[in-house]
Amino acid sequence: MKANTILITNDDGIAAPGLKALAEVMKELGEITIVAPDSPQSGMGHAITINNTLHVEHITGFLNTNQAYTCSGTPVDCVKMAVHEIMKKKPSICVSGINHGSNSSINVIYSGTMSAAVEAGIEGVPAIGFSFCNYSWEANFEPLKKYVKKITSEVLKNGLPEGVVLNVNFPNTEKIKGIKICRQAKAIWEEEFDKRTNPMGKEYYWLTGKFVNHDKGEDTDEWALANGYISIVPVHFDLTAYHAVQQLNSWDL
Amino acid sequence: MKANTILITNDDGIAAPGLKALAEVMKELGEITIVAPDSPQSGMGHAITINNTLHVEHITGFLNTNQAYTCSGTPVDCVKMAVHEIMKKKPSICVSGINHGSNSSINVIYSGTMSAAVEAGIEGVPAIGFSFCNYSWEANFEPLKKYVKKITSEVLKNGLPEGVVLNVNFPNTEKIKGIKICRQAKAIWEEEFDKRTNPMGKEYYWLTGKFVNHDKGEDTDEWALANGYISIVPVHFDLTAYHAVQQLNSWDL
Repeated sequence: MKANTILITNDDGIAAPGLKALAEVMKELGEITIVAPDSPQSGMGHAITINNTLHVEHITGFLNTNQAYTCSGTPVDCVKMAVHEIMKKKPSICVSGINHGSNSSINVIYSGTMSAAVEAGIEGVPAIGFSFCNYSWEANFEPLKKYVKKITSEVLKNGLPEGVVLNVNFPNTEKIKGIKICRQAKAIWEEEFDKRTNPMGKEYYWLTGKFVNHDKGEDTDEWALANGYISIVPVHFDLTAYHAVQQLNSWDL
Repeated sequence: MKANTILITNDDGIAAPGLKALAEVMKELGEITIVAPDSPQSGMGHAITINNTLHVEHITGFLNTNQAYTCSGTPVDCVKMAVHEIMKKKPSICVSGINHGSNSSINVIYSGTMSAAVEAGIEGVPAIGFSFCNYSWEANFEPLKKYVKKITSEVLKNGLPEGVVLNVNFPNTEKIKGIKICRQAKAIWEEEFDKRTNPMGKEYYWLTGKFVNHDKGEDTDEWALANGYISIVPVHFDLTAYHAVQQLNSWDL
């Protein structure tokens, strides 16, 4: 049987412990290639680098593989670069993460981790983004590994529906109760800008905010995570709101 | 009657002719506030600035309004900054563009123009992204203006379904035939990296590629644009692939 080829990327950058944990699991499932950003790229969404150059470096002996690279671009750039320039073929699967922090609910849209998975999906590669609801660099990824392996194995076995990738989030708990297939909760960030004055007397801002979930549904990712379950949301990238087409066709345009 | 308050942003930056054209139309519909990136932000997708500071500058007398600002961040940052720090209230509508270049089909996902509109939608503000399938800085926006006004007026009158924003693209033609409500065509970028060597002998890349539409449907935005129609795709940001939930629930997880 031909070995699985596995592309690994993330948005926290090549040095992130979550990437190492993910690579350790994937080595048990196939031949890995790592192409990760050379610096943290959190919050980059589906950004691509079109007004600047891209650099790629081979990292010798990184995590005991000969196939590890950094890319100067975004997570989406990493996937494009991996498929078209480094691997020069589509891998069996692309896994992104394990992100240090949640990508549940509306966070999916800001997430570099998930955008890398979505980009792989656009290119026709089955893809999963993994995120841990624990922002610490010292987070313990060990208890997550068996689930990462199980979910990835199922995708390798069953494939994914066309145009669908998976958004997997792990609850920040010692006792994981199981896995739930969920929908994206309707939650938002209530922004607050932290306004400060720099040493030259000029004002500047930090983007900050409070995550608020207004969605009481027990079929949501937020519910699953709050109740100790791993959430899996199938995510698509045909953004057409089909239910709105009929209504818009009634307008006087 | 209380005047409409209109937030205007884009991803080509404050100096773009497309922004000026959009502002000229919007002045006929209400009180405008411009918050645009201080530099071009094409391809930024839904990126936000979380690892860096943000700066805002008031631009006196810009386009004869006293309410014009630049922001050092992405288009999404501009919308957050506008609603929460500059306007300090939700505008009646947010319009983004007019983008210099197409945001049809899968481009919606890479587009800063559309991500600004989506961000406004997330915040509960009716929003439209306008794009012109002409990349030239000298493109003639005059023939588009009456359509921009008509579409914006309809949204102000009818509102939009919850969780939906509009992706409007204008064909690059002298004779616009009309407006079509469309779905997002299934098309992709076939990437090619232009590999070069810098003066120090080090290799680097430019991201490039060819846009390929495999979707023959006559209900798509690509069909409409190729046939001289303005395309309007209703876009949503609940990315859940509901049709996949049932299948995933049959897996051995």
